[in-house]
Amino acid sequence: MNRQCILVSRPEGIAQAENFALVDAAPQPLADGDIRVSNRFLSVEPAMRGWIADKGNYAAPVALGSVMRALAVGTITESRDPNHPVGQAVTGWFGWQQEAVVRADAIVRRIGETDLPLSLSLGVLGINGVTAHLALTGIGQPRAGDTVLVSTAAGSVGSAVGQIAEILGCRTIGITGGPEKVARCLDRFGYDAAIDYKAADFEARLAETCAGGINVYFDNTAGAISDAVYPHLSLGARVVVCGTASIERWDPWPQGPRVERHLLVKRARMQGFVIFDHMDKYEASVAVLADWVRSGQLVHDEELLDGLDAAPDALAGLYRGENVGKRIIAL
Amino acid sequence: MNRQCILVSRPEGIAQAENFALVDAAPQPLADGDIRVSNRFLSVEPAMRGWIADKGNYAAPVALGSVMRALAVGTITESRDPNHPVGQAVTGWFGWQQEAVVRADAIVRRIGETDLPLSLSLGVLGINGVTAHLALTGIGQPRAGDTVLVSTAAGSVGSAVGQIAEILGCRTIGITGGPEKVARCLDRFGYDAAIDYKAADFEARLAETCAGGINVYFDNTAGAISDAVYPHLSLGARVVVCGTASIERWDPWPQGPRVERHLLVKRARMQGFVIFDHMDKYEASVAVLADWVRSGQLVHDEELLDGLDAAPDALAGLYRGENVGKRIIAL
Repeated sequence: MNRQCILVSRPEGIAQAENFALVDAAPQPLADGDIRVSNRFLSVEPAMRGWIADKGNYAAPVALGSVMRALAVGTITESRDPNHPVGQAVTGWFGWQQEAVVRADAIVRRIGETDLPLSLSLGVLGINGVTAHLALTGIGQPRAGDTVLVSTAAGSVGSAVGQIAEILGCRTIGITGGPEKVARCLDRFGYDAAIDYKAADFEARLAETCAGGINVYFDNTAGAISDAVYPHLSLGARVVVCGTASIERWDPWPQGPRVERHLLVKRARMQGFVIFDHMDKYEASVAVLADWVRSGQLVHDEELLDGLDAAPDALAGLYRGENVGKRIIAL
Repeated sequence: MNRQCILVSRPEGIAQAENFALVDAAPQPLADGDIRVSNRFLSVEPAMRGWIADKGNYAAPVALGSVMRALAVGTITESRDPNHPVGQAVTGWFGWQQEAVVRADAIVRRIGETDLPLSLSLGVLGINGVTAHLALTGIGQPRAGDTVLVSTAAGSVGSAVGQIAEILGCRTIGITGGPEKVARCLDRFGYDAAIDYKAADFEARLAETCAGGINVYFDNTAGAISDAVYPHLSLGARVVVCGTASIERWDPWPQGPRVERHLLVKRARMQGFVIFDHMDKYEASVAVLADWVRSGQLVHDEELLDGLDAAPDALAGLYRGENVGKRIIAL
């Protein structure tokens, strides 16, 4: 049987365990052009909240009663597509299930880095690392010597952004929650400074650390942290809008301090980034990232959950902030 | 004597007549390198609110007791700078006064368009027209067929934006206040559609008119109008942040619906524009604009106030919305 994690109801806010159900489905026979992928690792990511929401988003919502949409890594175990032979390791849209029967268009890429762990394709060599790389360089356009501030500095995307900015010769400042993550930002991810947004002196520390102005603000939060950051943008600053993790609901639409005056006075730019617009640069980006991983300049944390039983609560747990590193379900 | 309009106190919000005083100063003798300009026209513009405010802005605040900072048009009547001979028409930072003694760096440009009215250098051939042209093309980057929405559509900058977008092959939609200005947008400025933001059906009309999505939003308001506009941005939209006219005070900082989700979902870009960063492109822009004025493709409205006595209340009146066209004090 093929064990699957199904979306059974649509949450208000973050999906909780009760919004999912585990079922055992009969294995699906292959039609011409189909591929069977046996999943090894399943991704858990903040963006899933948007995929589940029945609201305007960059992707159609996951249908009720269907397998939860997810990137995964696996191996082709049966194939009726001559371009995709049995034995090939692949990453793609295989969902929260033991095995997937898909067409070739569900494959994001064949994994060629046989010297590196497979699970990296769900982290620093996957959508998170590529997002960090392409959004930082494409929208943030950092120059050597720039100050780059990252709002979810210890997260899967943020930690890659900080390290890439450091490689590019920038001064890097991370914002994260709690002293443990602050230490992790400094010791493991090499930020030049790290600030705890939960600390009472957050705004004072931010002002002091960013006294020279922020050239690039890489944001995954869109909430109170950003509100504190905008006044410190430098002339000509670039703001990468990559996620809105600190906003739990968009209905009613949340209010915040208006940004227009900051953008005007600082001649600053704010722009949204969604990786799916940039798939043509994906392979080239992975090649660059893999080299940095091999040279040890780019490190990556992951947290492995054990089996599909962990899936229903995995997303809620992410939003409770209980993970350290990229959350992955290992099968 | 040289009649001057002086800033005597700093307002909360918009400067009113009582924040200014008229004085008669003794004519100032010229030192080496000085130029005496006899002013013919003085500019009144929304941005003056920012120049007066004692807050973070793109220019140092006007000092109390000094002549109100303003662009003006005049003729050189005495010169101890061999590069700027007597008789030359010039526009520059000559202030709200009958005559100014300045150095060459106060001159924005010598006026070469002897076939066109001098006052145009404070309007469509001045900072307003050049702002419209460079901000629209530089940040808005309109392509033929794009839908371009302008928030102060009948204003000095906005009316130029609408007409330039039309010249560039775009579909143009103007937002303005009241049926008279709506008619003016359609009949005089050639917008393809115009919407009254004061009308009860504003949001419905906006939704209907922008059903295909807004590619470029040229904004001078930063308030409730923008809040209604953002949900209608198209994929990859560009928002030009050119002014914040609808916000009366920035202390306390005003709140509004958060923009991050719109920017993310629509992969949209928002960027501030201040003309003083682009003075190197000023002369080339005026040349293009002057040709459009000559061919009749670019029209411009102005409202002349009579003499310096009108200066103290001129800015407050602008914010009361009583002007039609670019407000200019004629001496």
